[in-house]
Amino acid sequence: SEVKKIAIIAGDGIGPEVVAEAEKVLKRTEELFGYKFETEHGLFGGIAIDEKGTPLPQETLDICKSADAVLLGAVGGPKWDNNPKELRPETGLLGIRKALGLFSNIRPANVFDCLKEASTLKPEVLEGTDLIVVRELTGGIYFGDKFRRDTENGQEAVDTCAYSESEVERIARQAFEIAQKRRKKLASVDKANVLETSRLWREVVNRIAPEYPDVELEHVLVDNCAMQLLRRPSSFDVIVTENMFGDILSDEAAMLTGSIGMLSSASLGEGSFGLYEPVHGSAPDIAGQGISNPIATILSVALMFRLTFGYEDAAQSIENAVKIVLDAGHRTGDIAVDKSKAIGTTAMGDLIIAAM
Amino acid sequence: SEVKKIAIIAGDGIGPEVVAEAEKVLKRTEELFGYKFETEHGLFGGIAIDEKGTPLPQETLDICKSADAVLLGAVGGPKWDNNPKELRPETGLLGIRKALGLFSNIRPANVFDCLKEASTLKPEVLEGTDLIVVRELTGGIYFGDKFRRDTENGQEAVDTCAYSESEVERIARQAFEIAQKRRKKLASVDKANVLETSRLWREVVNRIAPEYPDVELEHVLVDNCAMQLLRRPSSFDVIVTENMFGDILSDEAAMLTGSIGMLSSASLGEGSFGLYEPVHGSAPDIAGQGISNPIATILSVALMFRLTFGYEDAAQSIENAVKIVLDAGHRTGDIAVDKSKAIGTTAMGDLIIAAM
Ligand SMILES: CC(C)[C@H](C(=O)O)[C@@H](O)C(=O)O
Ligand SMILES: CC(C)[C@H](C(=O)O)[C@@H](O)C(=O)O
Repeated sequence: SEVKKIAIIAGDGIGPEVVAEAEKVLKRTEELFGYKFETEHGLFGGIAIDEKGTPLPQETLDICKSADAVLLGAVGGPKWDNNPKELRPETGLLGIRKALGLFSNIRPANVFDCLKEASTLKPEVLEGTDLIVVRELTGGIYFGDKFRRDTENGQEAVDTCAYSESEVERIARQAFEIAQKRRKKLASVDKANVLETSRLWREVVNRIAPEYPDVELEHVLVDNCAMQLLRRPSSFDVIVTENMFGDILSDEAAMLTGSIGMLSSASLGEGSFGLYEPVHGSAPDIAGQGISNPIATILSVALMFRLTFGYEDAAQSIENAVKIVLDAGHRTGDIAVDKSKAIGTTAMGDLIIAAM
Repeated sequence: SEVKKIAIIAGDGIGPEVVAEAEKVLKRTEELFGYKFETEHGLFGGIAIDEKGTPLPQETLDICKSADAVLLGAVGGPKWDNNPKELRPETGLLGIRKALGLFSNIRPANVFDCLKEASTLKPEVLEGTDLIVVRELTGGIYFGDKFRRDTENGQEAVDTCAYSESEVERIARQAFEIAQKRRKKLASVDKANVLETSRLWREVVNRIAPEYPDVELEHVLVDNCAMQLLRRPSSFDVIVTENMFGDILSDEAAMLTGSIGMLSSASLGEGSFGLYEPVHGSAPDIAGQGISNPIATILSVALMFRLTFGYEDAAQSIENAVKIVLDAGHRTGDIAVDKSKAIGTTAMGDLIIAAM
């Protein structure tokens, strides 16, 4: 079959070590399923600041643009936290999303049976929780005009939040389509009682809703959603919302599952291109010790296979392998109850490829 | 002693019935402590829209302005949800905050022993949770310019988020002062890795922090805060944040305590003037049945006594009375385990004044 090009940007902290395990999974997939991958590595985030003087070097962007999909480890760390804006890893993250047109961030929050206990929620509340937050990723207050000006009350800072009808429509359509393939429930989250962008958001969602008659739509105010996620997490199926609200709610949703070390995400644009990354961060405190958990990154590869390449067989093989390994009781330190029995990053990767 | 003027705006749904119980508490306080209150009632919210054609009639505003404090029930309901902006209860709420200069919303989130089980969080995680969210209430994206314009991508909606140094400074000072009287820990929440207003926020907080050397300050990103509230709620003491983030996080914090029907709030400006209201909404579904829980409103009176009038004795008397009544096992329907034994709104009010 056709060779798929994958750009690999390992990033900072534990990024390189978890990505290394994901690359073993790519190799194993070639052997098992006959697919062909060509990988190219790019510098990104803190390491790119150190080596190239910018978080997102043009070369890295070119590598991504010529690829069919991108696998990202994690970026950032205290070392760069006090840098000026242009020299911060986050600026690279915002830049790559915009440059690659990745307007949609898909964040599944589901509960791994073996990690139910890790949640701070009561197991009976968590039972059956399996939701996806679809977050708009290239609009809103993240990308609007930002500036300072002098006023009689001292300096004033301004951020602008803007959304156009077409921006709302494309993300809403994607969310409806995802909901159609799942439990057919969509919660659109906004603050329409206060914000003009939210009123436009709600109008557009309502306008296209009749085209998806099989999907049950509800509008939820963002403050109420933050509460309902805690009260009845299992009642949500797909949640769609704008960039800033999505940032907050997707992290709340991830945390309540107790499985944050295991969750993967996809950032998509038009067409099949996508950027895949674990939800967890770069964890600089444990980087380089070989103890980090590669599962979220490995599951990001499964998501890439499913959403970008349509390799459902390989995606399932990976997901099954993860399940087999966890069911057999193997754990990295972050998810081990008995820390003394925890295995390392490469051991976990090896077990998973062996189980594929 | 001096007569204190209290403006009472009962509002919609269960507002009038819970406020009626709070008024019994005012009367009982006069008898027990010799304080004198003069109350004046104003129309506000949906009922004001129906009767006066505006959610915030000038008369009501005048009543509030000539009072020492305001007690608010609750506003809103499905009846007015699809009204144009000027004819919505929320518009009245934003208007009254701005007109009265109530720049600070104090939202305690603490756990009532008898309601621990009502939380969806595990009891051992919740143990010891007692935090206050200090939310900036008259700035940010709530009050910035809002408009629509035509673009090549269809209509575009715009909201503007602005903060001046003096706006940040006054709310930050208040939060530091509250923290000084508590466990001396302040978490300032922002999104300084993305927003200019957040960078200004952080600068101002850092600039004044040395004036409160006994308070331990941490900066927490809003997405991380949404997670940490779930993971380690008891580790927070005071959280200070801007309007929109505060809306979301204070509701998340309230819900995780399991005590949402019991929580009160204060909105303060310069000086001692304040507006006090329960955190719960107008609950139109149960309005008029005499089954609503008046405790949050009664506790709002205690907060008024403490923060606006300095009547600590009366505040404690109310809080103790609530504790006695709950410890004796009395419950309204919303917090009863055995619903068949639930008592009504007035019965709960009577028990509390009897226990004062
Ligand atoms: C690092 C930051 C800019 C980023 C965001 O807010 O989008 C992160 O929190 C995320 O959710 O991917
Ligand atoms: C009704 C709405 C405008 C209001 C707000 O967002 O401030 C409410 O959610 C609150 O928190 O008091």
